[in-house]
Amino acid sequence: MTQYKDLSKEQLLKIKDELVAAYESYKAQGLSLDMSRGKPGKDQLDLSNEINNVLVADSDYKCENGMDVRNYGILDGIPEAKRLFAELLEVEDKNVIVFGSSSLNIMYDYIAQCMIFGAGGKPWASQEIKFLCPAPGYDRHFGILEHFGIKMITVPMKDDGPDMDMIDELIKDENVKGIFCVPKYTNPEGLTFSDEVVRRFAAMKPAAKDFRVIWDNAYIIHDINDTPDELLNIFEAAKEYGSEDMFIEVTSTSKISFPGAGISALAASDNNIASIKKRMTIQIIGHDKINQLRHARYFKNVDGIREHMKKHAEIVRPKFEAVLNAFSNELDGLGIANWKNPNGGYFISLYVMPGTAKEVGRLCKEAGVVLTSVGATYPYGIDPDNSNIRIAPTFPDVEELNKAVEILCVCIKLAAVNYLLGE
Amino acid sequence: MTQYKDLSKEQLLKIKDELVAAYESYKAQGLSLDMSRGKPGKDQLDLSNEINNVLVADSDYKCENGMDVRNYGILDGIPEAKRLFAELLEVEDKNVIVFGSSSLNIMYDYIAQCMIFGAGGKPWASQEIKFLCPAPGYDRHFGILEHFGIKMITVPMKDDGPDMDMIDELIKDENVKGIFCVPKYTNPEGLTFSDEVVRRFAAMKPAAKDFRVIWDNAYIIHDINDTPDELLNIFEAAKEYGSEDMFIEVTSTSKISFPGAGISALAASDNNIASIKKRMTIQIIGHDKINQLRHARYFKNVDGIREHMKKHAEIVRPKFEAVLNAFSNELDGLGIANWKNPNGGYFISLYVMPGTAKEVGRLCKEAGVVLTSVGATYPYGIDPDNSNIRIAPTFPDVEELNKAVEILCVCIKLAAVNYLLGE
Repeated sequence: MTQYKDLSKEQLLKIKDELVAAYESYKAQGLSLDMSRGKPGKDQLDLSNEINNVLVADSDYKCENGMDVRNYGILDGIPEAKRLFAELLEVEDKNVIVFGSSSLNIMYDYIAQCMIFGAGGKPWASQEIKFLCPAPGYDRHFGILEHFGIKMITVPMKDDGPDMDMIDELIKDENVKGIFCVPKYTNPEGLTFSDEVVRRFAAMKPAAKDFRVIWDNAYIIHDINDTPDELLNIFEAAKEYGSEDMFIEVTSTSKISFPGAGISALAASDNNIASIKKRMTIQIIGHDKINQLRHARYFKNVDGIREHMKKHAEIVRPKFEAVLNAFSNELDGLGIANWKNPNGGYFISLYVMPGTAKEVGRLCKEAGVVLTSVGATYPYGIDPDNSNIRIAPTFPDVEELNKAVEILCVCIKLAAVNYLLGE
Repeated sequence: MTQYKDLSKEQLLKIKDELVAAYESYKAQGLSLDMSRGKPGKDQLDLSNEINNVLVADSDYKCENGMDVRNYGILDGIPEAKRLFAELLEVEDKNVIVFGSSSLNIMYDYIAQCMIFGAGGKPWASQEIKFLCPAPGYDRHFGILEHFGIKMITVPMKDDGPDMDMIDELIKDENVKGIFCVPKYTNPEGLTFSDEVVRRFAAMKPAAKDFRVIWDNAYIIHDINDTPDELLNIFEAAKEYGSEDMFIEVTSTSKISFPGAGISALAASDNNIASIKKRMTIQIIGHDKINQLRHARYFKNVDGIREHMKKHAEIVRPKFEAVLNAFSNELDGLGIANWKNPNGGYFISLYVMPGTAKEVGRLCKEAGVVLTSVGATYPYGIDPDNSNIRIAPTFPDVEELNKAVEILCVCIKLAAVNYLLGE
């Protein structure tokens, strides 16, 4: 197959005519398809419905330590919920705090705490501070940093994690106070940090003594096929270097049970747990403990979660395959796009012809297909190459998804042809 | 009956002997009784168990606007939960945001937001600011202020609310940025702000343009007898003065459904709702919506809540009566204690002989009766009169409570006798 860039103007114009015709016919169908956010589909939500049967009116509401979960008390989570997350994160129970439904909220609150009180040093709000942002990355991480007026420095993502040489240079600046990461099945790349990258994180020697790595392990157990990635335990690695205080790990059951009603957790060193609990003592009496007990009794242990995640994979895998097959069939060899092929997570990271991503987004939108805002995967919403598009294949059903990807491929081609034609 | 202060030394010594004997016999029983926190008793928790039957595995999980509550989405609460709180707070739905289980967390986050971003003016963290603290008051309000380094100025509580003349003077200082209040069945006094006091709040003209009143309406519908207090709607009052932006109202179902798994809400002006939502967009995707739907479907409307609260009152009233009757029988006429007789809320505010409250707390503790830390009802934990004790009668059962109050009365007398004897 000839790459688009090697086609003559006449050939391009001919292809364009066909693409425009196809595009207009899609547009005429008045479709409404959404591949914008990493939302589970309805059938995935149904997998967890039984959680709502675990505690009913006449259930035993006592958690393992004898406390009634309906009443006040237990700041850091009921014992069985702490243990569940401790198993999942491979840390000790004492290094876990269980929160409400949102790990985003945990991260926001932690940064807010550092802004007001610092992380052992001066309050961050009293300084001009910077964070490193592996990109493409998760837009809501960038959102938190921008919200707090923290300057973002882009660090390119390689196939095994962020560019660690660049990071080691940048952290010589003591105003660089931290970095946000999704270490496993990264958002949106779907890649996992190699053991070497994890060890280099653990070995970092930032000039700032209050440097913090927000280790957002959102997809810790979210495999989609039989060749799952393995991520080295950051706290194990950190132990060797005595750098445990540098890491704040979070996760949640948002994409295990319910995004709208899960439970979340933070893992950290003894020092960090103590300082976070000190803040929480003032902030809250305790997060929803009935929901913690529901989750703990339903999943029982990490094996229970693992079995449950296999059911998610059965539903999610065909959707990833639908997108990847369509890309392969429609775009391979044209020299106008490439993409990642992840073993887990919620996204497919697509790179269209540099300079055309925004146009692809616009064309899709007009044809009724909503994509993640182009640029959202970069700090300040600006993709310097105007090339990356995050595809979230889980929410639509397979039929809708096939249609959406069909349209997306037409838009990718049309934008490329127009770009090459200088239009 | 002769007041203790009018007794001779010999008479006091004789009484002391009897009291010491009684006290030692209690101590020997190795009791463990808790009147320290406003926690519902087990029978109260049982009243709400049916909430956990509202949503089971095969339920309809769509809220009124068609959204699936199990999935991501809806930042400010599902429509039926917003309406439920709007009815309760007598405001419009658009002026309500529904949160997770904790209204304390709402207040903490709001103050944190003001610290970092201000409330229309400069960030509070960049200034030496002060808050007014009606006292005796709620220790967790004082806790938030102390945590953020906000200077607390005590304002005495009168029988119809805080001393408004003093407040009107103090707010001439533009560093005075706000005040925390429990306007109905105040913690611990159990009194309710009069219409005049509410109107004076609405009419306040603070020098600080970013002055905020945190109107913690925790006991909005928590009557315990047939002569409930009525609180004027602060937003109705504020409308007359165009001062709606000054008020942040919060409430929760913590003492309606479950302290450990309720839902909470904030009511505010359009301007404040917009600025809080702007922050929340970054902080969270949405609070637990399944729990919102459980509550909304169970209670249906404010009448549903009102009926439910009557059942709480049936359980709580005898406990309040037990304490009040014991006080009346044991302490009336001795000139060593007085107390409030509330129509609702969770507390009885007891004033023992000035200078003896800490000793009463110590004596109780040694006899196995835990009271709220003496002083906790004042800023910085210091009761200048060393007199106020907050009694929380709801958690123990009536039998335990009778025993605890019996012991408390002995301790009050013993401390008073010792004080008068100069010991």
